[in-house]
Amino acid sequence: MTVPESTKESHTDVLIVGAGPAGLMLANWLSRFNIKTRIVDKRGTKVFSGQADGLQCRTLEILDSFDFGHRVWRESNHMLEICLWNPDETGTIRRSDRIPDTIPGISHFQQVVLHQGRIERFFLDSIKEHSDIVVERGVLPTSFQFDQAKAADFGDYPIAVTLRTLSDEEATPQQRLQHQKTEDGQRSTSDGLFRSNLAADDTDDLIRAAKNGDHSRPVETVRAKFMVGCDGAHSWVRRQLGFKLEGDSTDYIWGVLDIVPITDFPDVRQRCAIHSANSGSVMIIPRENKLVRLYIQLQSTDVKDGAKVDRSHITPEVILKSAQQIMHPYKLDYSYCDWWTAYQIGQRVGDAFSLQERVFLAGDAVHTHSPKAGQGMNISMQDTFNLGWKIAHVVNGYSSGSILKTYESERRQVAQDLIAFDHRFSRLFSGRPAKDVMDEEGVSMEEFKRAFEKGNEFASGIAVNYGASVIVAKESEASGKGDGTYAKSKPQLARGIDIGKRIPSFKVLNQSDARPWHLQELLKSNGRWRVIVFPGELTTPRNMERMQDLGAKLAGPDSFIRRYTPTGQPIDSLIEVLTVHAGPRTAVELLDLPEAFHPYDKESGWDYWKVFVDDQSYHEGHGHIYVNYGINPDHGASMIIRPDQYVSWVGEVDDYAEMSRFFDTFMTPQLAGETGNGELSSILAEVKVD
Amino acid sequence: MTVPESTKESHTDVLIVGAGPAGLMLANWLSRFNIKTRIVDKRGTKVFSGQADGLQCRTLEILDSFDFGHRVWRESNHMLEICLWNPDETGTIRRSDRIPDTIPGISHFQQVVLHQGRIERFFLDSIKEHSDIVVERGVLPTSFQFDQAKAADFGDYPIAVTLRTLSDEEATPQQRLQHQKTEDGQRSTSDGLFRSNLAADDTDDLIRAAKNGDHSRPVETVRAKFMVGCDGAHSWVRRQLGFKLEGDSTDYIWGVLDIVPITDFPDVRQRCAIHSANSGSVMIIPRENKLVRLYIQLQSTDVKDGAKVDRSHITPEVILKSAQQIMHPYKLDYSYCDWWTAYQIGQRVGDAFSLQERVFLAGDAVHTHSPKAGQGMNISMQDTFNLGWKIAHVVNGYSSGSILKTYESERRQVAQDLIAFDHRFSRLFSGRPAKDVMDEEGVSMEEFKRAFEKGNEFASGIAVNYGASVIVAKESEASGKGDGTYAKSKPQLARGIDIGKRIPSFKVLNQSDARPWHLQELLKSNGRWRVIVFPGELTTPRNMERMQDLGAKLAGPDSFIRRYTPTGQPIDSLIEVLTVHAGPRTAVELLDLPEAFHPYDKESGWDYWKVFVDDQSYHEGHGHIYVNYGINPDHGASMIIRPDQYVSWVGEVDDYAEMSRFFDTFMTPQLAGETGNGELSSILAEVKVD
Repeated sequence: MTVPESTKESHTDVLIVGAGPAGLMLANWLSRFNIKTRIVDKRGTKVFSGQADGLQCRTLEILDSFDFGHRVWRESNHMLEICLWNPDETGTIRRSDRIPDTIPGISHFQQVVLHQGRIERFFLDSIKEHSDIVVERGVLPTSFQFDQAKAADFGDYPIAVTLRTLSDEEATPQQRLQHQKTEDGQRSTSDGLFRSNLAADDTDDLIRAAKNGDHSRPVETVRAKFMVGCDGAHSWVRRQLGFKLEGDSTDYIWGVLDIVPITDFPDVRQRCAIHSANSGSVMIIPRENKLVRLYIQLQSTDVKDGAKVDRSHITPEVILKSAQQIMHPYKLDYSYCDWWTAYQIGQRVGDAFSLQERVFLAGDAVHTHSPKAGQGMNISMQDTFNLGWKIAHVVNGYSSGSILKTYESERRQVAQDLIAFDHRFSRLFSGRPAKDVMDEEGVSMEEFKRAFEKGNEFASGIAVNYGASVIVAKESEASGKGDGTYAKSKPQLARGIDIGKRIPSFKVLNQSDARPWHLQELLKSNGRWRVIVFPGELTTPRNMERMQDLGAKLAGPDSFIRRYTPTGQPIDSLIEVLTVHAGPRTAVELLDLPEAFHPYDKESGWDYWKVFVDDQSYHEGHGHIYVNYGINPDHGASMIIRPDQYVSWVGEVDDYAEMSRFFDTFMTPQLAGETGNGELSSILAEVKVD
Repeated sequence: MTVPESTKESHTDVLIVGAGPAGLMLANWLSRFNIKTRIVDKRGTKVFSGQADGLQCRTLEILDSFDFGHRVWRESNHMLEICLWNPDETGTIRRSDRIPDTIPGISHFQQVVLHQGRIERFFLDSIKEHSDIVVERGVLPTSFQFDQAKAADFGDYPIAVTLRTLSDEEATPQQRLQHQKTEDGQRSTSDGLFRSNLAADDTDDLIRAAKNGDHSRPVETVRAKFMVGCDGAHSWVRRQLGFKLEGDSTDYIWGVLDIVPITDFPDVRQRCAIHSANSGSVMIIPRENKLVRLYIQLQSTDVKDGAKVDRSHITPEVILKSAQQIMHPYKLDYSYCDWWTAYQIGQRVGDAFSLQERVFLAGDAVHTHSPKAGQGMNISMQDTFNLGWKIAHVVNGYSSGSILKTYESERRQVAQDLIAFDHRFSRLFSGRPAKDVMDEEGVSMEEFKRAFEKGNEFASGIAVNYGASVIVAKESEASGKGDGTYAKSKPQLARGIDIGKRIPSFKVLNQSDARPWHLQELLKSNGRWRVIVFPGELTTPRNMERMQDLGAKLAGPDSFIRRYTPTGQPIDSLIEVLTVHAGPRTAVELLDLPEAFHPYDKESGWDYWKVFVDDQSYHEGHGHIYVNYGINPDHGASMIIRPDQYVSWVGEVDDYAEMSRFFDTFMTPQLAGETGNGELSSILAEVKVD
């Protein structure tokens, strides 16, 4: 092998391999922290059509926290209802049930559908708006070295990766887009299986091509503090680490068509699960731009005992024909097909997610499963949504490395739950409906419906509940455990809140201007921890006294907020204190509260965006957040919320000591220095003049 | 005077003079119709800060109909509450009342504040997205000719205007932006009065400069079918027509400061009307980006008997000092001033709005008044929102010219109402508060409050009610008037609807996918008339029969829909039929209804976006549109809605003859031709691939 004549060398904080949803979410987080980041992808272009499309309500909450949830919400198709279709006594399919697609009340968003290419576009726009990070396409890592000796110091660069650049030709998938019939009137049959799990991995071919290619192409050695493999089911990064995906495949093959349907089937704009008597199942996912996605069981191509599938037998015509049989007596056809593919159902999860908290795996690199439940893109993005702020806080010296261990403990559990869910769900879906209660081989449609309903909570993404850790204080005083190092919660002060889950959102009003906000809108993904104080009714003198006490401690010269706020930054830049009192709004003035709750800045005056109230709005009802959180307005509670909106701690309104104990276990004291002066420059930056 | 050596000559459908909000709204409408449009502005740049800022809920509805209302909604400051501050018995100001800023229930938007520069940016983006129209800046009309002989034929070009281009220097206002203190610590005092009505008009100077300037600069004669003067209070177009603004000025001078306030005044983030005992009044308008606008009465500079104001006496320091006196004992100061100005209060309205329906005036060119009520930018945009589709329909040959006469009849009334409102309101605002009931010179604060509350309805923009005309069928059968040529309404079929007002919006569900939509979201500004059929409960056989009858007539080969649809365009491209039945949704299938209500296309199948239902949604409540519109679900009603969302006609569900009569009086039959084939190409254009 020829050694390149000159190899460039460079340093970066974080190297991201793979620019799909997981990689882009991570780059997007890092764009908010000014972290030196490289992101490379072996493909020459982003995804344009097809691929993943379902977006959980939790994913929408997350995208909204980055200020582009509304772009998804506006462009996507909203799915409201699921219709179940089963054979009747004559074997003809009929609608047997309607259930809501998103459980009412679970989130202020509902599940929607928009193709992966648009989501990636929104990420790219967001990254560009906040940083100089650019996705390097057609760039491939070809070697990896890890220096154990450097792994203990988070300021050092233990990772060395060689990056090579592909030619345009090598980097461009052979898959042609097929937006119209070919000229002879045949439907185009280009290879829809290109990214399918029925296709072989081309990474080694690409590496070989890159190494044997034109020696004038750049070769670069990147030294990195962190590397994250977001490089899919065939992850090159995972292979370097020697980690494995564990699990297995089924014999079920499913096809996918994205078409503008021409049909008399009445529910083609609803999400449908259709079980035919003997021809297999179809799932309908209505999409944006008049498109409908059909997941179609391909009985004729099912493989037995792990035999290889003959890909040449799978064409859009074959897939359509299966759908027509399943949906008989309704007619189904199309003129326009946007995309198609097929895949073999299987479930696998990674045996490890990280190498010494310096190299991480995320997304399909650590969990693969069938796409029908609309989970893949969501869980992948949520992996790096969990990881991104932790890496950034360590790189920036805000936190000790201990918080990085929680990535694997938190996300591996989610991956295992996902795989278990998909295992059960896909078998119920691919099975033949039972003819009657005596038909033990068949799938009971009642059982299927129950699984669907139960699955909906999991599928919303809201059910995720992270275990106890240095950043989730689940243990309560009552348990009597622990050595006093770690903060303890008093969950009984907010019985509607699950410590470890994302904080549910209800509307509150700004004290100063009466504007209603969903609480989550106040918890933008900007890297801040939040202490949210719910002091109860402030007309009760005891409650106001506790606020005075807490305010004095928070404002103290050595308070945990001052201790951990980076030098020269505003006092709210790492730990932001928000207040939601129990109302009524008109009984209190902002300036009745101590300054810690509405910091003063000599350039911009009082901060009017920290104190809120649980009260009736003029136009948008009453959020009843005290009732919904189970907080007694006579007594109150305080919470600590992570930068990713998960609840860390619940305790007494004025339990300054326990709050401080929480942060003290993992945060890094900053140099003492003036604070509060960064404010005006940030105002000026915000003032839009065009 | 030197004659330019060569003069270019060109033709355009519409020439717009002035690229402020009125001109941009018009260009924006025309961008949706592929109308050949020129838009010129004498200034070299758009507005960047200051100027108008208040946006009525009706304006938000309109911007939303062009798909960028959400950009305003997200960036703007929302105003929820108005606080009234008056002197107490000791003469100290105190909060006397709180009232909602927008009347609850009046609209699905509420009044917000965002500076004119951003609104103009959104218009420019929207125009660019839909057309090749570009604002030509630093371009000035210098002569005007009108050929009477050509005025009768709407295909001809009766207007000739010479356009000259200014040098960059001439076109750039001298007003410097003042985003920070000057280096010696003094506040910058550049001329905030540049665009104020205290400044002289510079149009003639600019014309002189353009004519005497470099002769190599282009001179062009534009021949236009239509010209619209959106060129402000000193309108050059108005002068060419010889029209006048009628009305007068007051002696009141007010100053304006856009600042980030440093204050202990508790309501600085609320809209406030503050009447001091003896120092004058302040109005507070909280804005985006921590800014607050203060309108401040300048007592020391009030002029008497029409004397000229000495502009040099008006500085930000003088204005601030007045505010400090009025708001005493509260403190007020600032470090950052974004913009300032001052103006003299007066009210004027144009004596005519159009020359033979070929040259029109809009915006400040036909109505000027004081800015405090936040009306100016709104009424200006609504002028051309009224005019734009009418010009487009005439240019494109859809309609006879008769609809153009309604511009003046509809908008002059609005201008007069505005002027009357402002006259009363500004005098109440500038007057000294009455000390007691015996104080007849003072203004009663009770009267002021009542005026404020009543003013709120007017200020929302919702109250506008257009008079009877060829496109507003107010006359009812009961009146017995008319000669049978014009359609008559049956207002009793929808008692909650005012014919002539914009249709109120409530949520309805899509029949095919259960998604809730605000009715107005279905009425996008794309130039379509709508027939909205409210058939009542379709489980009642009589109601379904009437739908069958109406469907058959609408689908007939010579139906009014076919007659007026442009050749080769989809059947819904000029008159769209929407249905909202009374529910329940699950009792009906889309395909139970005749094809006229959900047109079939051979490339894209059935249209699933035409039939809606008044029913409970899973996540967003029940719109109760039948109750709100006063339609009996046993009987139903039909409506015709203008392309600008105003109600034209209310009648029986199946009164095809009267619907046809309505359109027959002003629409132009199109050549017979195939329809329905434009559909697929438009689908493909919509499919986003990146």
